[in-house]
Amino acid sequence: MSSPVSITRLTTTQDNFNQQLDQLLAWEAVSDTSVNEAVNDILHQVKHHGDKAVMEFTARFDRLEVADFSQLEMSQERLQQALDGLPDDQRRALELAAERVRVYHEKQLQPSWNYTEADGTMLGQQVMPMDRVGVYVPGGKAAYPSSVLMNAVPAKVAGVKEIIMVVPTPGGEVNELVLAAACISGVDRVFTVGGAQAVAALAYGTETVPQVDKIVGPGNIFVATAKRAVFGTVGIDMIAGPSEILVVCDGKTDPDWIAMDLFSQAEHDEDAQPILVSWDASFIDQVQASIEKLLPTMERESIIQASLRDRAALIQVKDLDEALEVTNRIAPEHLELSIDDPMSIVERIRHAGAIFMGRYTAEALGDYCAGPNHVLPTSGTARFSSPLGVYDFQKRSSLIMCSADGASELGKTASILARGESLTAHARSAEYRIK
Amino acid sequence: MSSPVSITRLTTTQDNFNQQLDQLLAWEAVSDTSVNEAVNDILHQVKHHGDKAVMEFTARFDRLEVADFSQLEMSQERLQQALDGLPDDQRRALELAAERVRVYHEKQLQPSWNYTEADGTMLGQQVMPMDRVGVYVPGGKAAYPSSVLMNAVPAKVAGVKEIIMVVPTPGGEVNELVLAAACISGVDRVFTVGGAQAVAALAYGTETVPQVDKIVGPGNIFVATAKRAVFGTVGIDMIAGPSEILVVCDGKTDPDWIAMDLFSQAEHDEDAQPILVSWDASFIDQVQASIEKLLPTMERESIIQASLRDRAALIQVKDLDEALEVTNRIAPEHLELSIDDPMSIVERIRHAGAIFMGRYTAEALGDYCAGPNHVLPTSGTARFSSPLGVYDFQKRSSLIMCSADGASELGKTASILARGESLTAHARSAEYRIK
Repeated sequence: MSSPVSITRLTTTQDNFNQQLDQLLAWEAVSDTSVNEAVNDILHQVKHHGDKAVMEFTARFDRLEVADFSQLEMSQERLQQALDGLPDDQRRALELAAERVRVYHEKQLQPSWNYTEADGTMLGQQVMPMDRVGVYVPGGKAAYPSSVLMNAVPAKVAGVKEIIMVVPTPGGEVNELVLAAACISGVDRVFTVGGAQAVAALAYGTETVPQVDKIVGPGNIFVATAKRAVFGTVGIDMIAGPSEILVVCDGKTDPDWIAMDLFSQAEHDEDAQPILVSWDASFIDQVQASIEKLLPTMERESIIQASLRDRAALIQVKDLDEALEVTNRIAPEHLELSIDDPMSIVERIRHAGAIFMGRYTAEALGDYCAGPNHVLPTSGTARFSSPLGVYDFQKRSSLIMCSADGASELGKTASILARGESLTAHARSAEYRIK
Repeated sequence: MSSPVSITRLTTTQDNFNQQLDQLLAWEAVSDTSVNEAVNDILHQVKHHGDKAVMEFTARFDRLEVADFSQLEMSQERLQQALDGLPDDQRRALELAAERVRVYHEKQLQPSWNYTEADGTMLGQQVMPMDRVGVYVPGGKAAYPSSVLMNAVPAKVAGVKEIIMVVPTPGGEVNELVLAAACISGVDRVFTVGGAQAVAALAYGTETVPQVDKIVGPGNIFVATAKRAVFGTVGIDMIAGPSEILVVCDGKTDPDWIAMDLFSQAEHDEDAQPILVSWDASFIDQVQASIEKLLPTMERESIIQASLRDRAALIQVKDLDEALEVTNRIAPEHLELSIDDPMSIVERIRHAGAIFMGRYTAEALGDYCAGPNHVLPTSGTARFSSPLGVYDFQKRSSLIMCSADGASELGKTASILARGESLTAHARSAEYRIK
C-alpha cells in the first residue's frame, strides 16, 4: 500500500494564485564559492599546463591514471566497435532517431543572401559554419546517447568541420550506447575526460586537445560553472536548469496517459517540474488518482515522488483562454497541448521550448526520435531563447560593397551623422569617397 | 612638427610572428573585485527595493534628484520635440539611416515553417518575437544616436511589442540626437537612468519599469558587469571589447584613404585596434607616411596616437592567400577588403563581423547608414558569433503533432531508446500510444 502523494493544487480563482505560482516556479542555480574557486583553479591549471594538468585532474577526479595523454583519446575503430556490438533493435532505433533528427534540422539551415541596389551597391549576409565544436557528454549513470545525437547532429548539419566529444569514464567505465551514438553522429574525435578540466581543454586547447569555437552539452555544477567562466573565449549553449513539462488538457485524454507524461519529466531528478493545467476539476481528480495508482509501479518511484511533492502542481483554470495565459506566463520547456484542435490555438503560444500537440504526441517522443531537438530552454528562458539548432553552429558576416556612386551618396549621410557624434575620422574617411 | 608615430610592424616571415600576433591581439576584460561587489550590491538593492533604489542610485551616481519616479520617464512628446528641433540635414540623415537599416534587417526575418510526413505527423518551428526588450544607451560624451538605431530598429522589425530605452542624463544633461533617434526608431518608453541600476530595473522590473526579456546595447564596465550577472534571468547581447578594423589592401588604394580608415577605428578609444595587412611592402611605407602626415590634423589626435602605438600593426604577408589566412586567424570585427575583385574571394573569409568590400566601401559607411548592423562581435568572437540582428529578437518553439499512426511507430523507437537510458516512465508514456 503506497502512501498518498502530496501534490500542490492551485486554482486561478484563489487570492494568492500569482504569488503561489511564482513560488513554485522560483529556481536559481547557484554555484557556491567553493565550486567557483575549485573551477577557477582547474581552468587556470589547464590553461597553463595543458595535457599534464588534464591528466592529473582525470587521475584525481575520475580515478583514471594514464602514462600518456594519447591513452585518453578513443579511436574511431573503438566507436565503430561499440556500434557493431549493439543489439539489432537498439542499433536500428539509434540510427532511425539520428536520421529523423538530421532531416528535421536540415530545414533550419540558413543560406547566405545578398541584394543589389539601383546604384550598384551590394548588401548581404554570408552564413558560415563554425570551424570546430566541443560536445560535452556526462559520464556514468546520466550518460544519454540521445543527448549525443541532439548535440552533434545539428553541428554536423551546419557544416562544422570538426566535432570533438569529451566524456568522462570514471574508473574506466564506458557507456557503449554513448560511443555508438558518437559513431552514428559523425563525431570526429573523442577524449575520455570530463568535468571543468574537459571544458578548459576545449576552451583553451592543450598540446593534444584542439581549441574549439563553441562548447555545448549538459553537465554537473562544475561543468556548468566552467562553461559560464569560459563564455567569451568560446561560445556556449544555455546553462540548463531542471527539466519541466506543462500539460494543458481539456479532460478528454486518458488520465493514465497524462499521469505517465508527468512522470516522464519527474523521473529525471527530484528538482524536475511537472505541471498540469485543466479547466475540468474532475479530470484533475482523475489524474491525481492515476498518479496514486501508477506511482508504486515505477522504477524511479522515489525520484518521481520527490519531484511531485516539491515541484509539481495541478492547476485548475477557468477555460482554455486562461490556460494559455498561464502557459505564456510559465514559458515552459516542454508544453503538451492535449486538446482537440491544437493547431487552431498554437499561434497564441508565445513562449515555449517545444510544443507537443494532440493526445498522441507524448513528450517522450520528442526526447528521442521525433526529429526536433531535446535541448530546450528551461526555467522560463523560452521568453528569450530557442531550442538548440543548426543556427547555433552557424554564424553570419555582414557584406557591404558600395559602388562609386553608392559610396558618394552614403558618404554624405555618414559624414553628417559622424560629425554629430564628433567622430571626425569617421566623417573624413567617408568624405574621401564623395565625388 | 609632430613626433614620429610608432606602430608595430610585423612580417609573416619573422620567426616569432605567431607569438607577436597573439600578444598584440590579447585582450581580456576584467571586472575587478570592487566593481563586482558594487554591481552585486546595486542589483540586490534594485531587486528588493525597486523604484526607490533606482532613484537613490540615480541621485548618487548621476547627480539627478527627483521627488517621484515619474520624473525619470521621458514622454513621447519630448522625443518628438527633439526630432523636430534638429537641423534639417541631421534629421534627413537620421531618417535615411533608419530607413536603410530597416530595409536591410527586414531580410533577416525568419518565418515559421512546418512539414507533414506520409503518416500525417506534422513537424515544424514556430518563430515569435520577444515581448519586451530593453536598450541601454550610454549617456554623456559616448552617446551615439547611431547606436540607438542599430539596437532598436532590428527589435522593431522582429515585431517586439515594447522597446524600453534607458539612458543616463548625468546632471540632467540630455543628448537631443539620441532622443531624436529614439523617436525615429519607435522606442516605446524612455527612462533617464543608467549604470547597473538601469540594468537591474530592466532585468527584475520595478513598480514603474517593466521587466524585459532581453537587454542589448553598449555600456561601461559597470553596465557590462551587471549584464553578465543578470544573464539567465534575461537574455543579453555580447559583452563588447574594444573596436577593431583589419584592412587587407593590394597596394592600389590611395594610402591616405587607408590611413583615415585605420584612424576611424583608432579614434574610438585608446584600446581600439587598427591593423593593415598587405603583400606590398612599399605600400605599407606609404600608409605609414600618410599616417604621419594626417595624424596632426585629427581632432582626436591623442586617442588615435595611443591606439596606434599600443594596439595597431602593419603586417606584411607573402600574398593574398596568406592575407586571408591571417584574417581568419584574427577573426576581425570589421574587415575591409580594399582589393580588385573582393567577390571572388569573400567565401574564403570564414570569420569576420562585417566585410567591407572594394576601395569605396569605407568602414564608416557601415557604422551609420549602409544598412547592416554596427553591433558586431569583437576580440575574435566572430569565430562563433554574429552581428546583432533581427534573429536576436526572435525565438523559436519546436512543433510536433503526431498522427495516431506516427505516434505508434515513433513510440516503438522511443521505447527502445528510453529503456536503454533506464528512463522507464519515458518508455511507458511512449508505449501507451503504441497501437
